[in-house]
Amino acid sequence: MRDKLIREECGERLDDLQCDGLYLIQNPDKFCFGIDAVLLSNFVKVKKDGYAVDLCTGSGIVPILLSTKTKAKKITGIEIQSDIADMASRSVSYNKLDEKIDIINDDISNALKYIKHSCVDTVCVNPPYMKDMAAIKNPDLPLAIARHELLTDLESVINIANKLLKENGRFFMIHRPSRLSEIFASMKQNRIEPKRIRFIHSYIDSKANLVLIEGLKGSGVWLDVEPPLAVYKEKNVYTDEVLKIYGR
Amino acid sequence: MRDKLIREECGERLDDLQCDGLYLIQNPDKFCFGIDAVLLSNFVKVKKDGYAVDLCTGSGIVPILLSTKTKAKKITGIEIQSDIADMASRSVSYNKLDEKIDIINDDISNALKYIKHSCVDTVCVNPPYMKDMAAIKNPDLPLAIARHELLTDLESVINIANKLLKENGRFFMIHRPSRLSEIFASMKQNRIEPKRIRFIHSYIDSKANLVLIEGLKGSGVWLDVEPPLAVYKEKNVYTDEVLKIYGR
Repeated sequence: MRDKLIREECGERLDDLQCDGLYLIQNPDKFCFGIDAVLLSNFVKVKKDGYAVDLCTGSGIVPILLSTKTKAKKITGIEIQSDIADMASRSVSYNKLDEKIDIINDDISNALKYIKHSCVDTVCVNPPYMKDMAAIKNPDLPLAIARHELLTDLESVINIANKLLKENGRFFMIHRPSRLSEIFASMKQNRIEPKRIRFIHSYIDSKANLVLIEGLKGSGVWLDVEPPLAVYKEKNVYTDEVLKIYGR
Repeated sequence: MRDKLIREECGERLDDLQCDGLYLIQNPDKFCFGIDAVLLSNFVKVKKDGYAVDLCTGSGIVPILLSTKTKAKKITGIEIQSDIADMASRSVSYNKLDEKIDIINDDISNALKYIKHSCVDTVCVNPPYMKDMAAIKNPDLPLAIARHELLTDLESVINIANKLLKENGRFFMIHRPSRLSEIFASMKQNRIEPKRIRFIHSYIDSKANLVLIEGLKGSGVWLDVEPPLAVYKEKNVYTDEVLKIYGR
């Protein structure tokens, strides 16, 4: 019965998330989640019975992981691409999480059509990282939309997060360190103060290639920079911490 | 003859910097340099025959180290406390560096009385880190002035750096990670774009307690986050990289 939710004829497959018996429908022709979504899900905090919104939710990987990693009462994922939002909804159903998670298929800038202003405890997002439109050859590819700021951008993401969040609500994002000064500027402009960041390095002696950021709406200035997280201890060998994050 | 430059009767002593035969006069009753100054000196770049200015220079440790670590033609240190500026001048003379380094005893906000607008290649600074005036019991102590924002503050430091720097001139600072969002905001406001940062952790698995920042005046947005630097590999045992920075 459940298997009817997977459209193999369209190239979809079912992946075992190796986390509390959860599964995810993915389509390798479009976009498959990477370590970013897993790291973000592990970094996000939602208070008990809290309400969380995941912007740019894609396949729904973050809401599905947060359903078990936190005690959130309700999680909403918003995804602009209709076929991907549809796949996310079917993943939610496959995991029998329809009462906890709902997927909205719309532009995140329309979020206030569905969700009340200043009523969300946690907003999280794994947004498109790249600005360089020049590098895109075929901008209508789902992959390009997930990676490049074609349909949304940093400013819009943080602006909508501010509108959704309660006072003292928490914002969580994973992004590229190369854009950290823009990120901080935009957060400040939107009254979300950076409180905790963690850099991800492929190896402990290489430059950071990802950064996890936690902000608090309406907070004073104080930032903690957590210990660095290295992904690999040697080629193709994950560090113990990454193995633990992956639940192995 | 040189030894007459040291006022032992006032509590001064001569320290071997263990770096190319350089020495520094210090007074333990006032302020002795820490690892911050050494890390900053190691992080700073000055182009060949360039002009560097060290704000809040204290004992002159940074200009003296830069005289050998870079190919700067000329280095100016500015220090507001007259007795400390005087000690710095005597250290410069002790090392026979009077032609390369000069020490100005004034408030950094008066720097343009001595140095032309937009003519400096590199500005560096190890400023007072702390904002919490409430914690200070005796605000006229030299130590309090070195540590707390009593006579200058972050905003003033970055503002004067911008005025001194040439277009594309480089700014280097060591500070507390807890203030990173303020630092970035102030740099942006003063057209100095953060280009490279490196976090210093006591141990690789502890929070960062210092951050080295390089900014470029008038640059576009792009930030590199370098590999983390751990100071200790175990209690009281420096890591190899820190030993190397100390020249051991």
